[in-house]
Amino acid sequence: MVKIAIMGFGIVGSGVAEVVTNHKEDIGKKICGAIELKYILDIRDFPGNPFESKLTKDFNVILEDPEIDIVVETMGGTKPAYAFTKALLEKGKSVITSNKELVATHGAELLKIANENNANYLFEASVGGGIPIIRPLAQCLAANEILAISGILNGTTNYILTKMFRDGESFETALADAQAKGYAEKDPTADIEGHDTCRKVCILASLAYGEHLYPEKVYTEGITKITAQDVRNAEESGYVIKLLGRIRRVQEDKVFAMVSPCLVEKSSPIANVDDVFNGVLVTGDSVDDVMFYGRGAGKLPTASAVVADVIDAAKHMQSRKWISWKETDRDFVVDHLDAEERYYLRVAKTANAEAGIADIFGNVCYIHSDCADELAFITEKKVARNLEAECEKLCATGIEIKSKIRLL
Amino acid sequence: MVKIAIMGFGIVGSGVAEVVTNHKEDIGKKICGAIELKYILDIRDFPGNPFESKLTKDFNVILEDPEIDIVVETMGGTKPAYAFTKALLEKGKSVITSNKELVATHGAELLKIANENNANYLFEASVGGGIPIIRPLAQCLAANEILAISGILNGTTNYILTKMFRDGESFETALADAQAKGYAEKDPTADIEGHDTCRKVCILASLAYGEHLYPEKVYTEGITKITAQDVRNAEESGYVIKLLGRIRRVQEDKVFAMVSPCLVEKSSPIANVDDVFNGVLVTGDSVDDVMFYGRGAGKLPTASAVVADVIDAAKHMQSRKWISWKETDRDFVVDHLDAEERYYLRVAKTANAEAGIADIFGNVCYIHSDCADELAFITEKKVARNLEAECEKLCATGIEIKSKIRLL
Repeated sequence: MVKIAIMGFGIVGSGVAEVVTNHKEDIGKKICGAIELKYILDIRDFPGNPFESKLTKDFNVILEDPEIDIVVETMGGTKPAYAFTKALLEKGKSVITSNKELVATHGAELLKIANENNANYLFEASVGGGIPIIRPLAQCLAANEILAISGILNGTTNYILTKMFRDGESFETALADAQAKGYAEKDPTADIEGHDTCRKVCILASLAYGEHLYPEKVYTEGITKITAQDVRNAEESGYVIKLLGRIRRVQEDKVFAMVSPCLVEKSSPIANVDDVFNGVLVTGDSVDDVMFYGRGAGKLPTASAVVADVIDAAKHMQSRKWISWKETDRDFVVDHLDAEERYYLRVAKTANAEAGIADIFGNVCYIHSDCADELAFITEKKVARNLEAECEKLCATGIEIKSKIRLL
Repeated sequence: MVKIAIMGFGIVGSGVAEVVTNHKEDIGKKICGAIELKYILDIRDFPGNPFESKLTKDFNVILEDPEIDIVVETMGGTKPAYAFTKALLEKGKSVITSNKELVATHGAELLKIANENNANYLFEASVGGGIPIIRPLAQCLAANEILAISGILNGTTNYILTKMFRDGESFETALADAQAKGYAEKDPTADIEGHDTCRKVCILASLAYGEHLYPEKVYTEGITKITAQDVRNAEESGYVIKLLGRIRRVQEDKVFAMVSPCLVEKSSPIANVDDVFNGVLVTGDSVDDVMFYGRGAGKLPTASAVVADVIDAAKHMQSRKWISWKETDRDFVVDHLDAEERYYLRVAKTANAEAGIADIFGNVCYIHSDCADELAFITEKKVARNLEAECEKLCATGIEIKSKIRLL
């Protein structure tokens, strides 16, 4: 008999309680035993809730109960989730989480504590909701050197960009629509400014390269500056605009990591990942491109990923753990200003604009622009700091730069 | 030190030798030890090959060497792979395979022998080449009841259909092109008649539902009857044509399983899986739709999946195995004539064709047909045996049926 507890009875936590209850028999078969949900920790009351009898407000009840082997942490945030997780792992209890903020911030330390105490710290649900990505990356692609990962990792921003693309809406209107549908929060900052995507990038990079990548090391740009005009220009020229989290190996011991909107060619498999769906394109040296696609959020999809981890932990109670990465002091992320990329630029059209652009940027490829007093073009690959300097030069000639977006 | 052997030094086998050699250090880190390729079994000679010193023609050398813990079987076919695999598992050696024919035919028995002898029998590479699908289905989606799987599981036929779709080629021309490029074999029967897809469907269904589904139980239809006209009609009406392996739960204890070409709406994520790529769309009761996409064949992609299994087996030498399904005598596949589906029909146009069609088929939806003496339409959902009877009735009125294709 495996007894578990859930900490945090919000959307995902209540989903976990449901999935564990509804699939009790099936889970039992898979772990060759029985599973029982013993406690749910939450500071709130839930009168009349079918799980009311399991609720407790006292963390120590869970920590001190020797019957509890596995604890699901679906509280979110780092306080008190960090302290609770640490205490549980130190007692040798396995912790399963969907909390990307905690994993992105303290993953290396918590994994180390888990290993030292022969416990599991698993977090399949922290990236891509219900989409299998952590385990496939760590296990199925174990024989690959991961060359690059490009992911649409945030459903809210993907919904907004899809609305802008399909219906020609402005960013503001699309955001309001996402809020009305419950896809975006009242304060949408973490989504639209790219912070949520950044945390997921950090988890994927740490897993792929074995050293903890901290969120503050990753250049992060959101989607608030994308206009309907940019979306239209991209669309007419064979591109879509997506908020991507990107990682790639650039030198033997350095990685490029960035969160930013990107123009993506329509023929790319991730160009077709629309609405609230997520997609993660992984390039390995042997396997080439593989993509994982599905619902990146939502109660039951995320809960199903959490429960899969619970099953795995229950089956491998005593066995060695397959995930880990180490803390590191060294700076293994290349400065984003040193990264070489192609750029889409939208600029005001003046009398001699084309000549000035050719002088400053060299070869460029003009693309569709249905706005008569604007030009849109794509540059060749340029080091970011050179591009910046060239943009300043262009501005100095009196030509306003209205948009600047990277290309995948 | 983990010592391994490879049986079958063909495309995949030599890829495994390469990947193990090139990633030796990295694999060592992952298994917390070292890995060594000790033998390669093949009846052929490979003079001058860098792996020549490891070659042996005697299976018993591998079977009787107590240092060998893990054997990779990339021979293909069932003779002698079945007997060899059985003998190795009975000795407690783990076997990793890419041999879909063997797994589809004898999987249940071999898994049972593996379990009885505390060995692993792993076959990630048998479906979808390098795409992680077996482990995600068995582990990551363990908290889901699998409602349905629809997969483009054969790269050769997908390449042919993509050529027909993009370039308006006939089946024969597209096949010849695939053969010229090395994507199709001289005798392409196993691919174009759907047998290869059928084997993969059997493996996925056995894994998803826990009972061995044998290939002869699955109604299988290839792509040889698809014409350029059908492809054009579909395309103009918002569909693509794909060869799909499909499984779905239809009653508590019955499944639908079929291999056939299908019209797929362009908005479906698998409609965009083109060329030699594979895509598997899995629908779980909690996770909803997830898709896995990548190269379904090829030397290094397939080898990378084999080596990932080797790493897993090496890490979990003594631990309980997570894959199994049982042999069964009961008929758990519904008769394909009882399945309810929508159909695309292309028929000769006669004076009163529409009236006759309405009389016999009831409501239908006419779609684009650029051939003046033909009609193309889509029926409502019909039980297959009723559709068959209606088609016979239509023929009896003198209207020839030129094509009949299912809809996803």
